[in-house]
Amino acid sequence: MDIAALKAELDGEVPLEENPRILQQKSRDFYWYSPVLKRQLDAVAADLVATPRSVDELHAALGSAWRNDVPVTVRGAGTGNYGQAMPLAGGLVIDVSALDRVIEIGEGRVVAEPGAILAKIDEATRASGQELRLSPSTYHTASIGGFVAGGSGGVGSIRWGGLRDAGNIIRLRLAALDGSIPSVVDLTGDDIAKASHAYGTTGVITEVEMPLAPAYAWVDLLATFPTLEGAVRYGETLAAADGLLLKNVAVVDASVAGYFKRHAPYLPAGEAVAIVVAAPFAVDDVARLAARAGGTVTLRSDQLDEATRARLPAAFELSWNHTTLRALRVDPAITYLQVLYPQPDICGKVLRIAEIFGDEAPTHLEFVRFDGAVGCFGLPLIRYTTEARLDEIVAIHEDNGCPIFNPHRYTLEEGGMKETDAVQLAFKRRADPKGLLNPGKMIAWDNPDFDYGKPYLFPTLAR
Amino acid sequence: MDIAALKAELDGEVPLEENPRILQQKSRDFYWYSPVLKRQLDAVAADLVATPRSVDELHAALGSAWRNDVPVTVRGAGTGNYGQAMPLAGGLVIDVSALDRVIEIGEGRVVAEPGAILAKIDEATRASGQELRLSPSTYHTASIGGFVAGGSGGVGSIRWGGLRDAGNIIRLRLAALDGSIPSVVDLTGDDIAKASHAYGTTGVITEVEMPLAPAYAWVDLLATFPTLEGAVRYGETLAAADGLLLKNVAVVDASVAGYFKRHAPYLPAGEAVAIVVAAPFAVDDVARLAARAGGTVTLRSDQLDEATRARLPAAFELSWNHTTLRALRVDPAITYLQVLYPQPDICGKVLRIAEIFGDEAPTHLEFVRFDGAVGCFGLPLIRYTTEARLDEIVAIHEDNGCPIFNPHRYTLEEGGMKETDAVQLAFKRRADPKGLLNPGKMIAWDNPDFDYGKPYLFPTLAR
Ligand SMILES: Cc1cc2nc3c(=O)[nH]c(=O)nc-3n(C[C@H](O)[C@H](O)[C@H](O)COP(=O)(O)OP(=O)(O)OC[C@H]3O[C@@H](n4cnc5c(N)ncnc54)[C@H](O)[C@@H]3O)c2cc1C
Ligand SMILES: Cc1cc2nc3c(=O)[nH]c(=O)nc-3n(C[C@H](O)[C@H](O)[C@H](O)COP(=O)(O)OP(=O)(O)OC[C@H]3O[C@@H](n4cnc5c(N)ncnc54)[C@H](O)[C@@H]3O)c2cc1C
Repeated sequence: MDIAALKAELDGEVPLEENPRILQQKSRDFYWYSPVLKRQLDAVAADLVATPRSVDELHAALGSAWRNDVPVTVRGAGTGNYGQAMPLAGGLVIDVSALDRVIEIGEGRVVAEPGAILAKIDEATRASGQELRLSPSTYHTASIGGFVAGGSGGVGSIRWGGLRDAGNIIRLRLAALDGSIPSVVDLTGDDIAKASHAYGTTGVITEVEMPLAPAYAWVDLLATFPTLEGAVRYGETLAAADGLLLKNVAVVDASVAGYFKRHAPYLPAGEAVAIVVAAPFAVDDVARLAARAGGTVTLRSDQLDEATRARLPAAFELSWNHTTLRALRVDPAITYLQVLYPQPDICGKVLRIAEIFGDEAPTHLEFVRFDGAVGCFGLPLIRYTTEARLDEIVAIHEDNGCPIFNPHRYTLEEGGMKETDAVQLAFKRRADPKGLLNPGKMIAWDNPDFDYGKPYLFPTLAR
Repeated sequence: MDIAALKAELDGEVPLEENPRILQQKSRDFYWYSPVLKRQLDAVAADLVATPRSVDELHAALGSAWRNDVPVTVRGAGTGNYGQAMPLAGGLVIDVSALDRVIEIGEGRVVAEPGAILAKIDEATRASGQELRLSPSTYHTASIGGFVAGGSGGVGSIRWGGLRDAGNIIRLRLAALDGSIPSVVDLTGDDIAKASHAYGTTGVITEVEMPLAPAYAWVDLLATFPTLEGAVRYGETLAAADGLLLKNVAVVDASVAGYFKRHAPYLPAGEAVAIVVAAPFAVDDVARLAARAGGTVTLRSDQLDEATRARLPAAFELSWNHTTLRALRVDPAITYLQVLYPQPDICGKVLRIAEIFGDEAPTHLEFVRFDGAVGCFGLPLIRYTTEARLDEIVAIHEDNGCPIFNPHRYTLEEGGMKETDAVQLAFKRRADPKGLLNPGKMIAWDNPDFDYGKPYLFPTLAR
């Protein structure tokens, strides 16, 4: 890598930054949620940060990286949790946050630049009564490109499934790292999988086209239950209710609810909680079903006075990894896992796991639609002690039929299905023949014969 | 019953009709789909028809029926298939077709009078970009009150489930037959079940409030497959695709497709067909998945010229009981059944049944969402021979784990779960203490100890 040559080529063309504090800052994401990643990745830093003001400038940076063999890691807003945006091999970080235009809004569609923040896109589409289908709970900070490249779903998944499900991304425009002038390709249909959730290892997303859903005046509800079982069964009932238009359904046990400080007045001690976001015309049914399930609706945002409503965080910010964040703020020793509780008998599996771990792994569930059925993901808090115990907790989940998507791994494979994604690998051979894009994140590229029995260690991280 | 006294009371107040031809016509629905019902109900006729021009006039008619002990059967558009709207005990038919106002349109809601035709409601709501969530394939002719009181779901059920699922009806206003001045009650939440799908036995619906969905420029697709299995698997795939906004997914085998005369140019002989209605932004994915499943997209309404599109019936009019209708027009000896193919292995069950019956029961499937999962209803055509054989066909389905909702029965119970609906029965005791509303349709009222081993026969029908 000849970073000096790259710098010389780009100087005056593309805004560059080499202040060490900024290099460090732009080389980090929310990897510190994981004590494992924190230990492994703390020293990771880019040599240079480029912040293109246009797609042309982005292309120029890619061309120069090609000529000078400089690794390139793209950065959206840097809110990923797995070190996705961290440049393990150093080199250039391309910060796309200035490429944030909403280009076009149509019926059921929006076209945007990758750096556009999700909430900003919705501000633009709301005039037409539309909004994004899916967003992470980092809605107010995350970029659409980062969500597509590094996220998986979240708020809205109770209705629309996951980000990679057919229909949830319409088109991605990709710039390759394959020459002095990057090839540009539009991906649609099956081809979207070449770049979605690829951590930017197969090209740089320069434009996205996403489907829109109708924007309603969503209502937040909290319903509390004497038992975790009551709350879980209620969550399942809502998740299965095809006629109720919902945007999010989460369930947490009493000890997790204890971390929701601002909502304390609505959360009786010792009670499990269902956190629901519903369309206005579904709210009465959501409340009625809570009562029938033995719960008490303690908060309805449509019945709060304006001042109270403005003071409280939105319900979706008690969900997904914001739940973890609220716990971490109180107790920095906490971390988390990502669990799939498969059908059938979701509730039975949840209760069995809860009983095995007790307060070591407080329960946090997110209900979604998964391949046309009710799905349930867990993001349990983990009261962390050692890496060995963490691995044990993972193994016990899997032994009990609940697969783990390990958030303490920085590679695509280990955080996912622990197998080669043949489509992405084949595409990377064309789009990034030198292997310069986000090195160390795709094991299949580095070491096709890797044995998933032990964690992967990218060479630069070996100390 | 003193029909003469009722007539005297209402004369000059409410439009009345006693021309025998009109009495017969207004006493019939599409019961003749069933050779069994045709035999049983052919002689059924009201003594008088009232066509109130306002809810007040409707109340007046009910009050008079109360005073004079006259049975009352409400009629919407008379498109039911089970003789629901047929006055088994004679008496008064109240035709609500003149009560057809759309009263109010809000965000996600519409309030209408019961006689409003579904397509007319959508015409009114479309200005706000909204439409009804669910409609029968008789969309252009059926009334909203009749749909709520006598229907179950249909177009839209692939997204929203059935009409009785929580959230799919917001409110029903009901007039009871309980005095000279009828009580009026608004039903919401769980109480809706007291009047939905009750065939008007528990009160007369005088106002409905229904949820609305966004109205898109829906696109029709036909995809043909060399085998029935290919088409069924494709239907299942679409039904499970949470990210694809679909409005209807039906599958028919090659012999059923042979009855779609106007679509013949798009239907290669011998091929099974999937009939899909999709949002514009889902169409490319629907087509792509068809190709991947080994199918050929032979029609896309968004790619037809205007003249062709105007000439062809809409895809939803190849679905639900319109499929049966098209076959009946060619071969009047055909009838049908209603089958539930339960999870798991929907496709296996469909193919087994198809193999057992061969051309005696050509396959017609409608995919829906059912309690949060993919559901599959069959409306197979039946090449009718005798009632005994029809009963045998029913029994063979049930022996193979596929319950039948028998469309050859005019009672609520026999067409449904073959058990007393305790909620409706209890409510009827208050709303219709004399048992004058649509007599003979609720077995639990007439004979609480009825043994469902044999078909029910209402006394007036015994000859
Ligand atoms: C509190 C909290 C809650 C969260 N909740 C959720 C959630 O509900 N659902 C969820 O899926 N995630 C969640 N996350 C993870 C993360 O916030 C989201 O995935 C988010 O969408 C990432 O967007 P970003 O702009 O921050 O991406 P970044 O972190 O900047 O990047 C993510 C990945 O995408 C790559 N990338 C970024 N931009 C591009 C581009 N233009 N082209 C190619 N590659 C690119 C990066 O290299 C990196 O590998 C959460 C994280 C936190 C801290
Ligand atoms: C070709 C064809 C296709 C069909 N497809 C479907 C389908 O996809 N899905 C489906 O569910 N059905 C279907 N049906 C059945 C029927 O068309 C629908 O259920 C329709 O909604 C009935 O409406 P209607 O106005 O014709 O009701 P009617 O037939 O007039 O009445 C139906 C029942 O409701 C009662 N009723 C009517 N109005 C009121 C009121 N105001 N208050 C109380 N009770 C009342 C009547 O007494 C009767 O018992 C189909 C029928 C045909 C012939």
